[in-house]
Amino acid sequence: MPLSPPAQPGQSFAEIETPALVLDLDAFERNLVAMAAFTQAHGIRLRPHAKSHKSPEIALRQIAHGAVGQCCQKAGEAEVLVAGGVGDVLVTNEIVGAAKLDRLARLARSAKIGLCVDHPDGVREAAEAAARNDVTLDVYVEIDVGGRRCGVAPGEGAVRLAEAIARSNTLRFAGIHAYHGSAQHMRSIDERREAIERAGFAARNTVERLSHAGLKCEIVTGAGTGTHELETQSGIWNEIQAGSYIFMDADYARNRQADGTPFRTFEHSLFVLAGVMSKPVPDRAIVDAGHKSAAVDSGMPVPFRREGVIYTKPSDEHGVLTGDPIAMPHRGDSLLLIPGHCDPTVNLHDWYVCVRGLHGPDAHVEALWPVAARGALI
Amino acid sequence: MPLSPPAQPGQSFAEIETPALVLDLDAFERNLVAMAAFTQAHGIRLRPHAKSHKSPEIALRQIAHGAVGQCCQKAGEAEVLVAGGVGDVLVTNEIVGAAKLDRLARLARSAKIGLCVDHPDGVREAAEAAARNDVTLDVYVEIDVGGRRCGVAPGEGAVRLAEAIARSNTLRFAGIHAYHGSAQHMRSIDERREAIERAGFAARNTVERLSHAGLKCEIVTGAGTGTHELETQSGIWNEIQAGSYIFMDADYARNRQADGTPFRTFEHSLFVLAGVMSKPVPDRAIVDAGHKSAAVDSGMPVPFRREGVIYTKPSDEHGVLTGDPIAMPHRGDSLLLIPGHCDPTVNLHDWYVCVRGLHGPDAHVEALWPVAARGALI
Repeated sequence: MPLSPPAQPGQSFAEIETPALVLDLDAFERNLVAMAAFTQAHGIRLRPHAKSHKSPEIALRQIAHGAVGQCCQKAGEAEVLVAGGVGDVLVTNEIVGAAKLDRLARLARSAKIGLCVDHPDGVREAAEAAARNDVTLDVYVEIDVGGRRCGVAPGEGAVRLAEAIARSNTLRFAGIHAYHGSAQHMRSIDERREAIERAGFAARNTVERLSHAGLKCEIVTGAGTGTHELETQSGIWNEIQAGSYIFMDADYARNRQADGTPFRTFEHSLFVLAGVMSKPVPDRAIVDAGHKSAAVDSGMPVPFRREGVIYTKPSDEHGVLTGDPIAMPHRGDSLLLIPGHCDPTVNLHDWYVCVRGLHGPDAHVEALWPVAARGALI
Repeated sequence: MPLSPPAQPGQSFAEIETPALVLDLDAFERNLVAMAAFTQAHGIRLRPHAKSHKSPEIALRQIAHGAVGQCCQKAGEAEVLVAGGVGDVLVTNEIVGAAKLDRLARLARSAKIGLCVDHPDGVREAAEAAARNDVTLDVYVEIDVGGRRCGVAPGEGAVRLAEAIARSNTLRFAGIHAYHGSAQHMRSIDERREAIERAGFAARNTVERLSHAGLKCEIVTGAGTGTHELETQSGIWNEIQAGSYIFMDADYARNRQADGTPFRTFEHSLFVLAGVMSKPVPDRAIVDAGHKSAAVDSGMPVPFRREGVIYTKPSDEHGVLTGDPIAMPHRGDSLLLIPGHCDPTVNLHDWYVCVRGLHGPDAHVEALWPVAARGALI
């Protein structure tokens, strides 16, 4: 049976059932414009990461603002994006297994599809899938630029993989994937700058060796919201993959800019609207949003514009607010929580409740957008 | 567009796509039998918590083994359970707001429906919803027995609420809800025993005061998998709400029994099957299951029967395995992970891949069960 959505278009803000994933359309649109202006001013390609939003509605708005396409992590996400009208998708991940590779290859009949490799067997398997499905796949060599996750070592190992790709009849060597995940949430600009300088050195060295081997590296792709200005200014990357900029989670807001002030390039546009179901004592209120409404892997959700009120101790379906009794909400009140980490929070919900004029007196639901690729794990 | 399921019934274990939520049917059935034997031997009612499994398929099997019905946390979960054939559902939570209460009241036309209150407004609102829908609702007074979450103070406050319920024409005072959540994961039996003794004192005192006020407390309900033996043996509770016993997560396995050995009453039956997509160096392998496949709020997933291999550093769609190079799996291998916390892990998936003979040579997919109430947040 289908589950009830938390709201319907046209309803007032007060009519939204809790908990709900609320998108402040005004702030979201300002974030879209801010990143479009930045990337256009710097002449850099933007390929936003759809793992943040899992929504063709959002992908198409990013593309309308100049993005070249989308990134994603899973074959299932790519399927949802292509079905929703996205024509250019890069899976920024190693895809292992014939069934998944065949799914990507089938998509390549109607869209430009890229994937990453970091092992010779990955090249062979991708080539076979492309051949079985009579398509060409774009293949990027992923190099480990400091994240110590996937990726081949920069330099000669990457060149050998690129040569194997270039030898294939069904693959196109498209460039290198150089993403430094752990640099995104380093708090000071100095730490982030040093990490991205090291990553840039590895990427530049790899591009030069590829060139010596006669291989043109068309695209150097990577970067996230936390470091995108550094990759952009490096002159090494020519495509950035920032995803979280549209939403701005609480954790990114803890990063510091060059002058030591919080990272404020983008606005908080995504919230979990929670309702108070119990207030047993004046300094404790219990909300209906716990682990199943808001991810806590990067810290607790932060109550929005509720000074003195702290969200703590989530259970599956409860969150405990503690703090100043004067500021504490009452039973039946609702409040906005800034998710600690937007990406896994979005993945818990089926709908974006898109609100116009969120912080004003006429706040109303303008649209419901499905989180169409929620749970696209394979 | 519907997402691809990770397997089909009849396939071999090796054909399951990763990541997938795998249920070991044999261990699951032994857990069902073990809890049925325990509750029957002790003459205590079992009302398992459906927030763990979100599946009518599992609920009906629990009821076939003697459970009196189900618990859940949300109106949407109750709707899924009743639609799936469950006739007796207790929402172990305060439900605030006319729309949600009307949904519960409508369900009460075809099933026995209970809910909890801890505030006089909750009694009034539930009575109004029952009257609007021409039904009777079972109402339990939730008392705070030490969890410091929801609940009225034990004793006179609870009696006043019960009197208000009893005065209503549309509500039935069904008993008290006395659940000590934070006791579930206290590691030593002594800590858990002390917490449940205190909870029992508060519950007994409340029942006696209710009796003095002329109110019969038919049911004292509470307990979880971590403490269910203690509540059962107390003589105070007559209904236990254990949910996790069917699955046994990694965190419950860290609890200790009276003799200091790990809690082994139930077997690990639920796993996330993860695939290795990259192995950049001998002591590091990257799997395709991260935050969006396995909840980490109670600690990292634990590789099953992979001594020397540790799951660490999850990203949205990556998990990093580190440890002994000899024991480390290879690119393309799959491995079972015991979730740190089953309930929010189940909620990330759309399907249980139910495997017969999981650890033997003929392991195969016997059924796919939908996680039907996944994302039932409101």
